[in-house]
Amino acid sequence: MKSQGESCSQQEVSSYSRPVFSGKNVSAMDRWVAFKLMQLIGNPPLRLKLWNNEELMSPKDAHGTLHFHDRGSLYRVITNPDLHFGDLYSAGRITVEGNLIASMEAVYRSMMKISKSSWLGHAINAWQKRPRANSLRGSLDNIHHHYDLGNEFYELWLDGEAMQYTCAYYPHEDATLEEAQIAKMHHVCRKLELQPGDTVVEAGCGWGGLARFMAANYGVTVRSYNISKEQIAYAREKAKQQGLDSKVEYVEDDYRNITGEYDAFVSVGMLEHVGQQQFKALGGVVDRCLKINGRGLVHSIGRNSPRLMNAWIEKRIFPGAYPPSIKEMMDIFEPYDLSVLDVENLRLHYAKTLEHWLVRFDANEDKITQKFDENFIRAWRLYLAGSIAAFQTGELQLFQVVFSRQENNQIPWTRTHLYIED
Amino acid sequence: MKSQGESCSQQEVSSYSRPVFSGKNVSAMDRWVAFKLMQLIGNPPLRLKLWNNEELMSPKDAHGTLHFHDRGSLYRVITNPDLHFGDLYSAGRITVEGNLIASMEAVYRSMMKISKSSWLGHAINAWQKRPRANSLRGSLDNIHHHYDLGNEFYELWLDGEAMQYTCAYYPHEDATLEEAQIAKMHHVCRKLELQPGDTVVEAGCGWGGLARFMAANYGVTVRSYNISKEQIAYAREKAKQQGLDSKVEYVEDDYRNITGEYDAFVSVGMLEHVGQQQFKALGGVVDRCLKINGRGLVHSIGRNSPRLMNAWIEKRIFPGAYPPSIKEMMDIFEPYDLSVLDVENLRLHYAKTLEHWLVRFDANEDKITQKFDENFIRAWRLYLAGSIAAFQTGELQLFQVVFSRQENNQIPWTRTHLYIED
Repeated sequence: MKSQGESCSQQEVSSYSRPVFSGKNVSAMDRWVAFKLMQLIGNPPLRLKLWNNEELMSPKDAHGTLHFHDRGSLYRVITNPDLHFGDLYSAGRITVEGNLIASMEAVYRSMMKISKSSWLGHAINAWQKRPRANSLRGSLDNIHHHYDLGNEFYELWLDGEAMQYTCAYYPHEDATLEEAQIAKMHHVCRKLELQPGDTVVEAGCGWGGLARFMAANYGVTVRSYNISKEQIAYAREKAKQQGLDSKVEYVEDDYRNITGEYDAFVSVGMLEHVGQQQFKALGGVVDRCLKINGRGLVHSIGRNSPRLMNAWIEKRIFPGAYPPSIKEMMDIFEPYDLSVLDVENLRLHYAKTLEHWLVRFDANEDKITQKFDENFIRAWRLYLAGSIAAFQTGELQLFQVVFSRQENNQIPWTRTHLYIED
Repeated sequence: MKSQGESCSQQEVSSYSRPVFSGKNVSAMDRWVAFKLMQLIGNPPLRLKLWNNEELMSPKDAHGTLHFHDRGSLYRVITNPDLHFGDLYSAGRITVEGNLIASMEAVYRSMMKISKSSWLGHAINAWQKRPRANSLRGSLDNIHHHYDLGNEFYELWLDGEAMQYTCAYYPHEDATLEEAQIAKMHHVCRKLELQPGDTVVEAGCGWGGLARFMAANYGVTVRSYNISKEQIAYAREKAKQQGLDSKVEYVEDDYRNITGEYDAFVSVGMLEHVGQQQFKALGGVVDRCLKINGRGLVHSIGRNSPRLMNAWIEKRIFPGAYPPSIKEMMDIFEPYDLSVLDVENLRLHYAKTLEHWLVRFDANEDKITQKFDENFIRAWRLYLAGSIAAFQTGELQLFQVVFSRQENNQIPWTRTHLYIED
């Protein structure tokens, strides 16, 4: 989750702000459509309230209330819940009263059940697993949207240590966000067995925090690639401030243009944005740049089985995002006989990371409203809360994959060194 | 590597014992064929000696001498080195003078190089990766061959603790085989987070050692499936001797007939024998028998990329064996949205396990020759030494995969519990 965010722009969602079919009355047809909608998403334990404040469904174990504020929002959402719910929620035409995260989890869980039992579920599954249309938008455009948000926005709710916009690692559940991001960086460095003097290449570096951490704490030199001018500028400035500019080089270029040979290859939070079609090319980059006894690590959001990204997230937040299954990820390694040494699934750590982000986001709402409108704030909150629910329910996974060349026998004997200091 | 061995029977290899084209003279044609053979396998650093004791190649860094004792062995091996080398070696018509393991490693490494560079290598690779012909022999027949060997044979060189015919886990490199097999069983039990009172189902149990270990050390009850009558009889007898027969039930049946629901599913060393076509069915068994918060572990020989088993091993030692790549293994999990939590590659541990087995095999040669002929002993030594070389060079991998259901949030927070006692 790095560098390719796109905000829910005013212009694009304006059509969601104008209610159609206005009028306060609720007809038998409206009620039938509302029931059908709930059936379509597996009848989650949620109350359902219509625009006349009529509570149509009131399950005892309800986690929250789904409130449709006008007839149009109901009729629109049923045509494509994945996409329209997010936009209508952002526009304030659908609200969730009660616990937003618990309500989203309830929806994910109920949809999981139908996806395993009903013909409708199987149809939805088949549709979600359809081959991806090759419609990558220009990354320049995506990045432009991202910079409308500005580094200051992310500084308000990411960790203050290293601006990590990726899953943290909580050694224990009550670690702070800062502690957990530092622990994540150590975990990555230990998995890579960094030694003083090693050279590291990084594909996708965000604001450059991991590269600086590696140089400062493990005595390595790092070359980090990123196509975003603003993030590179930020990263270089920070490296200069910290006296690390001789150890860390930030290159404003695509990861596919990586040159040179390195002791370690690392990519944290880029893979889910490059698209599945690029996996073999990424493997080719690794195969080209990794020394004979080099180590590599790829950290990415993933899936238990192939499925497209939620349409709204993909349209409004992360254009082109695609979290791969392990089988799909193997397209990076298998064509080059790269040897997978270790895969760790950290999905509950991402749920917790996102919880911390959401708490800070909420705490900084005053500052954020000075720069962004209410639609944006609702959209961002939905994105963070929905992501918590997705990792919490197992809809999304977080995989860290460690690998080396087939012929490398300088691999660690056990994984004990990750957990016990020498 | 369990329960489906087939010995190199006298009858089958008899054709390898009769030299054709006998005569001691070496012609220019013979030398050309010998050079071609070495070229085909990437010119490994080995001396090459012909039947007239002429040393045709003498590289300085040679690890051993490949000695062809008659013209026919040379001409036969070049038509299909994978298959015929093993049979001719077993027949004593090809010998390797010097270090057998180092010589085999040299061959694997040189073949790896050509497979990455030459058109011949690519052709061999493509051939090795061809879709597998569906020619599974009847397992009854395979098993019959296995029992010709007898439990006493395996007792001579497997560990004395639990008769584990699978990769051990060496907490440190100088652990004994017994220590390492016990450590492997603990490692598996910790990965499965066994708790007293849990129910475990095991697919493929060999002589039942892991099941008894789990019951004795973790207070669980185990139901283990195996289709081999003799192994089941051995396992039941041992359980009775150890007073564990009320905690462990050995079922003489196919893993596909597993019934009931369990807290844990475990399969150590079976997957590489069931064939890739069965992976989805195996996943279906897991999906049917795993409780909502259940944990599973599959331990199997694997590959960095799809390739057929060495033809000789597949024909003489393990009929039907196919070590899958991770991508192929995912056919067990992804169709059922099972969540992969942890993959660990233990290939160097298998090389060490095999080294211990070979040392014990050699130490017991006297006893073994009382029951088996020299062909068998050469074949078995080649199999053990060749397997060491395969794991040592990265030609084979050993994967332990831990998984659970998608909706299970009772998964361990970190993997620290595998390495640090509470």
